[in-house]
Amino acid sequence: MHTDAIGWGPSGWVRVLDQTLLPGEVRYLELHTVDGMVEAIRALRVRGAPLIGIAAAMALAAEAEQRASVAGLTPAWLDAAAGRLASTRPTAVNLGWAVERMRRVGQGALARVELPARVAEHLHAEAQAIWDEDAAMCDGIGRAGVTVVPDGASVLTHCNTGVLATGGIGTAFGVIYTAHREGKGLDVIACETRPLGQGDRLTSWELERAGIPHRVIVDGAAGWLMAQGEVDLVITGADRIAANGDVANKIGTYGLAVLAQAHGIPFYVAAPRTTFDRSLASGDLIPIEQRAGAEIVGPLPGVSAYNPAFDVTPAEVVTGIITDKGVLRPPYAAAIKRLLD
Amino acid sequence: MHTDAIGWGPSGWVRVLDQTLLPGEVRYLELHTVDGMVEAIRALRVRGAPLIGIAAAMALAAEAEQRASVAGLTPAWLDAAAGRLASTRPTAVNLGWAVERMRRVGQGALARVELPARVAEHLHAEAQAIWDEDAAMCDGIGRAGVTVVPDGASVLTHCNTGVLATGGIGTAFGVIYTAHREGKGLDVIACETRPLGQGDRLTSWELERAGIPHRVIVDGAAGWLMAQGEVDLVITGADRIAANGDVANKIGTYGLAVLAQAHGIPFYVAAPRTTFDRSLASGDLIPIEQRAGAEIVGPLPGVSAYNPAFDVTPAEVVTGIITDKGVLRPPYAAAIKRLLD
Repeated sequence: MHTDAIGWGPSGWVRVLDQTLLPGEVRYLELHTVDGMVEAIRALRVRGAPLIGIAAAMALAAEAEQRASVAGLTPAWLDAAAGRLASTRPTAVNLGWAVERMRRVGQGALARVELPARVAEHLHAEAQAIWDEDAAMCDGIGRAGVTVVPDGASVLTHCNTGVLATGGIGTAFGVIYTAHREGKGLDVIACETRPLGQGDRLTSWELERAGIPHRVIVDGAAGWLMAQGEVDLVITGADRIAANGDVANKIGTYGLAVLAQAHGIPFYVAAPRTTFDRSLASGDLIPIEQRAGAEIVGPLPGVSAYNPAFDVTPAEVVTGIITDKGVLRPPYAAAIKRLLD
Repeated sequence: MHTDAIGWGPSGWVRVLDQTLLPGEVRYLELHTVDGMVEAIRALRVRGAPLIGIAAAMALAAEAEQRASVAGLTPAWLDAAAGRLASTRPTAVNLGWAVERMRRVGQGALARVELPARVAEHLHAEAQAIWDEDAAMCDGIGRAGVTVVPDGASVLTHCNTGVLATGGIGTAFGVIYTAHREGKGLDVIACETRPLGQGDRLTSWELERAGIPHRVIVDGAAGWLMAQGEVDLVITGADRIAANGDVANKIGTYGLAVLAQAHGIPFYVAAPRTTFDRSLASGDLIPIEQRAGAEIVGPLPGVSAYNPAFDVTPAEVVTGIITDKGVLRPPYAAAIKRLLD
């Protein structure tokens, strides 16, 4: 098991760390079904673009294994279950990508009229492969990204991109973790990332466990710290990257990128190849998830809130995209084509 | 009584709305002493640059009245009490200004060997004058500021600057309120203003009570809304404005100003004359209050937070400063000199 954010439970169930309870409580959920995972992803019990892809794949495998024993592992079930998982959250491309990969493997085996138990084995192996590949890509991102981190750098990051968001050491966090392990003497500034506090609750928890010096700030303080010379570079993750290099990521990322540019500070995005979506020419085509206003204001009568969960950062303000195959530089359209071809 | 954020209680006590409990609970505190007010200001039960000046003045008057009957109204007490109040919060200049005004009135009356009851009457009248003048300046700010607000504008604001922050209709909020009352059909976007939620808890409460259409957003979403064309102008308040027009205000203001400039959106500051500090040549001389990290992360073991409560926006990115005597335009040094001379 690469991390304790997700794992296989007894009998092939999926064991998920309920991230909504962190850091106050470490509680694991045993999810037996696709619908259980749909709820967990929608409620952000499991979150992070790469991790929800892995989790969805594992839930498909887990329910398939149970269905194999009762002759319920059918093409219709597989398509419907894959559809429910893929539509749970719209912005991260990894989710749809992982679910489609699982669906094809399952439908291929079913079309070959393999035994149900054997189909389930294929699905389990495929989910494990998606996980293993993500962990390896995280390692690659860390190795590639460490080259852009100066010794003693103060690195500002947003949201959570570590072991709680991926199948390995993380994307942006993977770079931070690798640079720290190599003795670069980093200081990390973690934006708390309202409304759900992934920076405050999750990234600080990971930084503390890794022994990396850090400070949590409110999201609104980032520009001021840049103006004070306290930020050497910014690294964030990504939920989807269009063919031209536009980056959808957690709300707040766009503002950080524009502020970084205004202060002459490099702004990097770290993501595995699975985060690129070459079917979309530019970022304005990326669907932006709108979440409930109550995440911001709670159940206040009469108060309305507007809560887009993501924003899109145009490629023009991105200094580089750190992938598992190296750091992409502008012009991104050509670099992304070379990466994915 | 101009508003229910503050008032005179029976026997000259000071009645303060405990803003830390809003919007869930409307509870008033009866403060009898300077030290009670020191605690209330430090804990942000009463807050807002103009209002804490008024509140401090009223607390001095209230305790003076009690001391007058027991021969405890001495020059030494007055100086010490004024000093404790003035040092409660360092950034807003109105606090020190109001307290110093009260101290001079009191010491003048004591030097003339007036009867203690008469000295207390002077102090009460002076505190009321500070309040009345602030209310009138709010009205002036509203009248001046409405000229920069287009019909149907979407106005983004930060923190809280209304009846809960001033002695009248507010500074930035006063402009919004006046424009709304004049039928300009505004739509207001209120940044929640972490870590203490003055936008989320207080401004939305005031907007709702005034019947002004609005949405609350997380602070990190402001740049994205600007990029989407959803913001026509930004108006914030100020805690202190230096002689060159640099503006100290709630943390997050600086980032909003830089983002507004990057998107070609006007960025206005609204403040009464009492917010200017011509003794400071530029904003880097303004003391920035550092508050407890626990305001951001709570009592999380091992997690450290950095919590500057204010930032400084350089005059270069401020489109105009809306005062009770009209809208100042660059170059600010000359305009501020004319305003205050």
